[in-house]
Amino acid sequence: MRSVVRHRLGRFGFGADYNPEQWPESVWDEDMRLMKDAGVTMVSVGIFSWAVVEPAPGEYDFGWLDRIMDRLAAAGIGACLATMTASPPPWLAHRHPETLPRRADGTVLSVGSRQHYCPSSPAYREHAAKLVEAVATRYADHPALAMWHVGNEYGCHVPECFCDTSAAAFRTWLADRHGDVDALNDAWSTTFWSQRYSDFAEVGPPRVAPSFPNPAHVVDYKRFSSTALLECYLAEKEILRRVTPDVPVTTNFVGAWHRIDVAQWAPHLDVVSYDSYPDPHDPDTVIQAAFTYDQMRALHGRPWLLLEQAPSAVNWRTRNAAKSPGEMRLWSYQAVARGADAVMYFQWRQSRGGAEKFHSAMVPHAGPDTRAYRETAALGAELARLEPLLGSEVDARVALVMDWASGWALQGSALPAGDLSLEETNFAHYRALWHAGVMVDVVSPTADLSRYRLVVVPNLYSVDIEVAQRLVAYVRDGGHLVMSFFSGIVDSDQRVHLGGYPGAFRELLGLTVEEFWPLPDGGTVALGSGGTGTVWSEWVTPGTAEVLDTFTDGALAGRPAMTRNSFGAGVATYLGTRPDRDTMAAVLRRALSDAGAGPVLSEKPDGVEAVQRGQWLFLLNHNDHEVDVPLPAGTVDALTGAPVGDRAPLDARGVLVAHLPG
Amino acid sequence: MRSVVRHRLGRFGFGADYNPEQWPESVWDEDMRLMKDAGVTMVSVGIFSWAVVEPAPGEYDFGWLDRIMDRLAAAGIGACLATMTASPPPWLAHRHPETLPRRADGTVLSVGSRQHYCPSSPAYREHAAKLVEAVATRYADHPALAMWHVGNEYGCHVPECFCDTSAAAFRTWLADRHGDVDALNDAWSTTFWSQRYSDFAEVGPPRVAPSFPNPAHVVDYKRFSSTALLECYLAEKEILRRVTPDVPVTTNFVGAWHRIDVAQWAPHLDVVSYDSYPDPHDPDTVIQAAFTYDQMRALHGRPWLLLEQAPSAVNWRTRNAAKSPGEMRLWSYQAVARGADAVMYFQWRQSRGGAEKFHSAMVPHAGPDTRAYRETAALGAELARLEPLLGSEVDARVALVMDWASGWALQGSALPAGDLSLEETNFAHYRALWHAGVMVDVVSPTADLSRYRLVVVPNLYSVDIEVAQRLVAYVRDGGHLVMSFFSGIVDSDQRVHLGGYPGAFRELLGLTVEEFWPLPDGGTVALGSGGTGTVWSEWVTPGTAEVLDTFTDGALAGRPAMTRNSFGAGVATYLGTRPDRDTMAAVLRRALSDAGAGPVLSEKPDGVEAVQRGQWLFLLNHNDHEVDVPLPAGTVDALTGAPVGDRAPLDARGVLVAHLPG
Amino acid sequence: MRSVVRHRLGRFGFGADYNPEQWPESVWDEDMRLMKDAGVTMVSVGIFSWAVVEPAPGEYDFGWLDRIMDRLAAAGIGACLATMTASPPPWLAHRHPETLPRRADGTVLSVGSRQHYCPSSPAYREHAAKLVEAVATRYADHPALAMWHVGNEYGCHVPECFCDTSAAAFRTWLADRHGDVDALNDAWSTTFWSQRYSDFAEVGPPRVAPSFPNPAHVVDYKRFSSTALLECYLAEKEILRRVTPDVPVTTNFVGAWHRIDVAQWAPHLDVVSYDSYPDPHDPDTVIQAAFTYDQMRALHGRPWLLLEQAPSAVNWRTRNAAKSPGEMRLWSYQAVARGADAVMYFQWRQSRGGAEKFHSAMVPHAGPDTRAYRETAALGAELARLEPLLGSEVDARVALVMDWASGWALQGSALPAGDLSLEETNFAHYRALWHAGVMVDVVSPTADLSRYRLVVVPNLYSVDIEVAQRLVAYVRDGGHLVMSFFSGIVDSDQRVHLGGYPGAFRELLGLTVEEFWPLPDGGTVALGSGGTGTVWSEWVTPGTAEVLDTFTDGALAGRPAMTRNSFGAGVATYLGTRPDRDTMAAVLRRALSDAGAGPVLSEKPDGVEAVQRGQWLFLLNHNDHEVDVPLPAGTVDALTGAPVGDRAPLDARGVLVAHLPG
Repeated sequence: MRSVVRHRLGRFGFGADYNPEQWPESVWDEDMRLMKDAGVTMVSVGIFSWAVVEPAPGEYDFGWLDRIMDRLAAAGIGACLATMTASPPPWLAHRHPETLPRRADGTVLSVGSRQHYCPSSPAYREHAAKLVEAVATRYADHPALAMWHVGNEYGCHVPECFCDTSAAAFRTWLADRHGDVDALNDAWSTTFWSQRYSDFAEVGPPRVAPSFPNPAHVVDYKRFSSTALLECYLAEKEILRRVTPDVPVTTNFVGAWHRIDVAQWAPHLDVVSYDSYPDPHDPDTVIQAAFTYDQMRALHGRPWLLLEQAPSAVNWRTRNAAKSPGEMRLWSYQAVARGADAVMYFQWRQSRGGAEKFHSAMVPHAGPDTRAYRETAALGAELARLEPLLGSEVDARVALVMDWASGWALQGSALPAGDLSLEETNFAHYRALWHAGVMVDVVSPTADLSRYRLVVVPNLYSVDIEVAQRLVAYVRDGGHLVMSFFSGIVDSDQRVHLGGYPGAFRELLGLTVEEFWPLPDGGTVALGSGGTGTVWSEWVTPGTAEVLDTFTDGALAGRPAMTRNSFGAGVATYLGTRPDRDTMAAVLRRALSDAGAGPVLSEKPDGVEAVQRGQWLFLLNHNDHEVDVPLPAGTVDALTGAPVGDRAPLDARGVLVAHLPG
Repeated sequence: MRSVVRHRLGRFGFGADYNPEQWPESVWDEDMRLMKDAGVTMVSVGIFSWAVVEPAPGEYDFGWLDRIMDRLAAAGIGACLATMTASPPPWLAHRHPETLPRRADGTVLSVGSRQHYCPSSPAYREHAAKLVEAVATRYADHPALAMWHVGNEYGCHVPECFCDTSAAAFRTWLADRHGDVDALNDAWSTTFWSQRYSDFAEVGPPRVAPSFPNPAHVVDYKRFSSTALLECYLAEKEILRRVTPDVPVTTNFVGAWHRIDVAQWAPHLDVVSYDSYPDPHDPDTVIQAAFTYDQMRALHGRPWLLLEQAPSAVNWRTRNAAKSPGEMRLWSYQAVARGADAVMYFQWRQSRGGAEKFHSAMVPHAGPDTRAYRETAALGAELARLEPLLGSEVDARVALVMDWASGWALQGSALPAGDLSLEETNFAHYRALWHAGVMVDVVSPTADLSRYRLVVVPNLYSVDIEVAQRLVAYVRDGGHLVMSFFSGIVDSDQRVHLGGYPGAFRELLGLTVEEFWPLPDGGTVALGSGGTGTVWSEWVTPGTAEVLDTFTDGALAGRPAMTRNSFGAGVATYLGTRPDRDTMAAVLRRALSDAGAGPVLSEKPDGVEAVQRGQWLFLLNHNDHEVDVPLPAGTVDALTGAPVGDRAPLDARGVLVAHLPG
Repeated sequence: MRSVVRHRLGRFGFGADYNPEQWPESVWDEDMRLMKDAGVTMVSVGIFSWAVVEPAPGEYDFGWLDRIMDRLAAAGIGACLATMTASPPPWLAHRHPETLPRRADGTVLSVGSRQHYCPSSPAYREHAAKLVEAVATRYADHPALAMWHVGNEYGCHVPECFCDTSAAAFRTWLADRHGDVDALNDAWSTTFWSQRYSDFAEVGPPRVAPSFPNPAHVVDYKRFSSTALLECYLAEKEILRRVTPDVPVTTNFVGAWHRIDVAQWAPHLDVVSYDSYPDPHDPDTVIQAAFTYDQMRALHGRPWLLLEQAPSAVNWRTRNAAKSPGEMRLWSYQAVARGADAVMYFQWRQSRGGAEKFHSAMVPHAGPDTRAYRETAALGAELARLEPLLGSEVDARVALVMDWASGWALQGSALPAGDLSLEETNFAHYRALWHAGVMVDVVSPTADLSRYRLVVVPNLYSVDIEVAQRLVAYVRDGGHLVMSFFSGIVDSDQRVHLGGYPGAFRELLGLTVEEFWPLPDGGTVALGSGGTGTVWSEWVTPGTAEVLDTFTDGALAGRPAMTRNSFGAGVATYLGTRPDRDTMAAVLRRALSDAGAGPVLSEKPDGVEAVQRGQWLFLLNHNDHEVDVPLPAGTVDALTGAPVGDRAPLDARGVLVAHLPG
């Protein structure tokens, strides 16, 4: 199952979330006609249909869906059919108030929006399972069925529930993870602050407390919560696999948000799916999007599905920017370039009512005679010409290591700097790599690193020694590594690796950090190289490491800010501060050069993204003005089949998809 | 009952909230003497006296109030007697904890401040009714009784209660509004996000939920809540009307705050009353005050009562500014100019204890030998000379349309711009009208518009087609209209008028809006006219409309920003952005000129407000320096009876009340 | 018991919080060795050991503590032994959920951090008492026992609990304070807003309410809460006194935070203890620290104990700065100079896990070969040479009056300026005194003032007349007093002293304030002296007072801003605004000069703190650069015994402890 889309659809996944139950049947015929005109190959159906399909417990009404599925089949459009369990009908909470989730302060989250269920609730799980069985059985052999869409954006709004049902499930999970209560006490360091438990029965969720919570408790609760949601997914998947063994199963991640651990989930998806909502008002947004695409692709090392994006504006920010003409096409190709085999939208037809009526759609409130419809339909036609691309892969030689549990731990309290975030620190490094034009995989620390020439570790705060040893071995065997401060500090139970920081990487880096010296909010520190450090400084004592740069003002003046250590056959560079953008770019360019990890194109204008996927080269001009880009001889425009000369002109927001000479 | 005050008192209402129960009887004699010296004609009595008058359920103690009423009668001072139900005594919640209101997150609001009752609570309503019956019966024939003051500032602190009692009452209200549950599902668009209800029993208040609530649910709950409070008012009014058929009944609005729908309430008041608290630290405050006075006056199209204002500072802002010498007089005349037949204060004698002890009073902590007492007493004497003015009306030829439910809907979530507020958008337009010096009525969209030469519609987001047609007919019949963006978008159940925005006004405006393009927070867009647009831009496709101004930068460059459409016998101008102050002023000046709606005075210095009420002209100098103002020949100073020359000199913060020649 | 430390230890208290239960016994030997090397004389043991010592109700396990106490005794190190009641074990809340505290909004504070108990809970108090009895009995005669440490940082996280148990205790407290319910109604001014209670049973905590709470209710609840915590302390102290009549008892204050009224508590401590955590990122931090030390010393007028400070960084700010080399020593001497007989740290050995693992320690994660250990050990050695200093006192001739209840009242709502804080206003005055180089006692308004030449009253908002009369008498008898605005306004039940502000001090100051005119946020007002006023202005009418300075812009232009009144044999200066720093400095320098209250040194460089304690002079150079300071002839370096010349050179962050000539 290397490429789900090539295998099942044979075409790019192209389409949208389709909610025909919101419209009279009289609209459906126009829908089918417009979908065909737009080149739609697949739609996501039924995501929020539970209340319509099961208006009362056990009473199912599939009539309308039967008719939709038949029409889709007739139109040659695949259905990514939802299990419909993302949002229970009001009758569930009315009959089972205990299914409603609770916040850490005890607030009950009511019906009236969506995702109002406790993931550990037996009543929710039972009703969901019955529904999935009914849906799977009814449509198992339907010719429109292309894929299963389980739940929806798991954990987006309720990543953690703090109710008593969850508390009981947590205790079971803890017994499974830690064994007995003594082991729990040891793992959680409960001799601190008189927190020692004498029985699992005394443990609850990390609810609101008078002061800082136990960090191990907090992170374990996030692990448990991710697992509780995964259990919901797996229970549904098991039914689907049994009833329809050959139909691929997915669920759509909203990845970079830290709700669930996608690295834990990915092995259980047949294909990785992702919802991507860059903000046109944010100039960094395309780099952030690239990061998440590189993360999604690397989860399986195979093509993934862009299951949702906006044709133009979203509706949930304070000021919801529209996408300028060309922007949607440009950003769609960014996803394809970075491994997507599907380009789908939320939503097909813009809702008349409800909370997402101002989210853009392929068919807006104003109807199909609109740029939203024209631009999406034009893209659908283009993608049909790019089918040879399906299933092809990206060959990245640089890895950025990101660990979900480290991110959770950094969200905690009582840290040297309480405002570190994994997103920000990852982005500070990734941005430099993006500008350098190299292909990057965003991987977990347990990934196989041997294929990479350079591994960047922005902030692996929490890591067990056996995992850390994988990074150590990577360098010993000849790898190049760049690591930033506050990595290798605690184990997975938030216990410090003793003997001097960073306990897990002292030998690798050839240094010891004695104390952290975070800078004041907004403060900077001068560097000997002429740049500045931000956020952080620290008291580094080099051992075998050579000093690359020093602090030159403040109490740390003269002490090392960056170092470089030859270790085994490899090299480990260390950053004891967060350098400004230019300095970070210089540091990573040097590391890339030392490691022999080159860019896709050796020369390109600023603001142009060049990505290679298989034998295809994507040039994406994020500028508001024209540019032209030098290309290798023999390159062919993949959309027109025409040869491209030695310089490709690109319009403002223009795209070139080219086939490289063999 | 054209003018309640002229009819009942025959004099300006002038006085204050009077809380003699806070003071020993020894103080009361001084109170009467000072009130007479200050020209007091009416005081509000008993607003917070429930706990004193009914110390235990059913045990009434009216002795002190009898003595106060007798003294007032003896002094020739009218009593605006409260029904005393604004704040129940502690014993009510102690005996009936379910009377306490709850927030959307379930938090119970306790006793200890005021207004701690659930408006739907039967126990509250029963105890309130018994009290009102007792008060009404006791004082029905008392010579001091001038008016009934029901409750106090309804909804000020608890505009909505989310308790189970309220939930049950809401279900009854919903059945009444929508009929059956299918109609509710249709109105609320519940096919969205699996929100379909199978029974009214499943519906509750829009309590805290995991994500965005259903917008129709939210707005219906605000409608219900305004109605629940109105029912409290009406239950009391019914008793009063039965016992004292001839005594006018009012309650004091705190209007611009969006708590209750004053347009819904106004028909049930015999006279509109309003509490006004401009902030001396805010340079825009006098324009905002003018807006609310124009709104209050237009509710009945008759004089209204300024039932509360501060003699100097209030106590509830972070920094509570005192009114500078002359400022209180100036602002009082602003209210009279805009239709007030009463000028009253909170409060008579500054409390010694409690939460409002630092709110200024006619008799401050320092006693009557103070500027607060001297300035208020001087005003009392002046007002006595202006009695001919009582009952006279303001003849406005410009209307600004404001709809409560649109304002509620804009407070919601998941909108193109989440930070639009009806106050701000109304004010952006009203400010330009104020500077233009025209008289404005602030009216609801169902008002009779035929009398107006220009109608301004800043943001009528939510409007049913039949209501929208009133505006369309107004223009077709020759009216001039200026409408700003995001009007006519949804119906009263928050369902989009399909086919292109603004669905309810496309034909009137001669254009279609395809997409909204809100600007980034703080961002602007250049206009062809040389001005700038703020907050918003959009993709306008003109039909019959001519383009008045265009966007000149960004992705919308060259597209229309403002248009003008001849429609029937009238003209409709449309603003697709919020222009900067100067541009807004120019646009509205042109519209006023086209419509033939002229200012009160054709020429006046900046910062001088000129208002005409009946045959009286008010000149209000809001500047810190002297000015002089050209006047029509034959104008007479209404306070001195002396003729005013062709130029009236005004001191800093000075006022001229003049009688215009016949 | 003039000096607990001299009496019990005979040496400086020097050491740290010691939590050996967090470590395997194999570490303990190293601990003892390092402690001796570092000159440790005392450690705080057992503060958070309840859960370890009593793993189940009534089952005690003291084995590990016996062994620690024996080792300490063997090493000649005293134990400041905790009663262990600061944080109950999880089993207590599991068995008695009602012991968990509640916030004002009803949120339950759960186990998982620390201090999760309702101070009024009988179950908590009973379990605590049994534990204290067991601990006291077991170690009564242990040779290591030096002092009792009751609880820990009382009220730090839960200064007030709003549960039903607390409500019942509050009612009892109210009956005791006020007598009957009529007296309560009178004290609380409950005729306001219909708040009259007919029975104590109707009174609860000031829980979340619809609007502003009753200020008297709020302040009484803070008084009650401070008392409830004090009862916990006293119950434990009583047991300790009975079992070990000769062992001094203390608890550590976290004073300037306004949680508990330390002036109420101090008489019940045998020695005052304080935890001090200045922020190295804050340039004002050393002056703020000096303030708290002067407050702690003045509580008993005797030496106090610095029971906790950080060797370097803390862990609970957003960015936790490390102390630069020399800074910890410098700041430690600041405490000693201002009366500390102990210099102790949190913590001995940096925790491996839990919420404080990033708080610095004498023995960091990196071990003893670190500057943290070296710098603390060096200080230990120095202090041993300063034993003659123990027990000596500071002779301050200036007092700054601070009243806890006034501070609580200022935290309330519905004030002329809602953002006044006692910390800020005290600091504005204290800073000027610090720069002037005089010794100051921070005292309560009931202190004996006769010894002071100048008394500064920054903001004594709430004061009963009989207390105010003490200040009046002080001036009448020849004292000099400086008082700032918003003093003497209300009594201890938040009732205004009528007749003009400041009611309690009108005659003393020779003026009347008619109205407060707070400035806009960030606004200033010009003064005739050339300076500016901030925060506040007011309408002052001088009587006998002479005008020192006037407002020169705004509506108060020409009116008094500062005055000076000769009263009896003394002088009272009044500030009707908060002058800018330079003006405040000038005003207080003049007052000091008039009062004859001179500085420790007549001449010293900026940034050098000169403090005299007994016959010892401390020079503390807070600058980053060297200075030298002129000294009296005959001064001897107390650490070296060498004479100091007429100018003492001080390194950057350097310290001189000198003995002055007899």
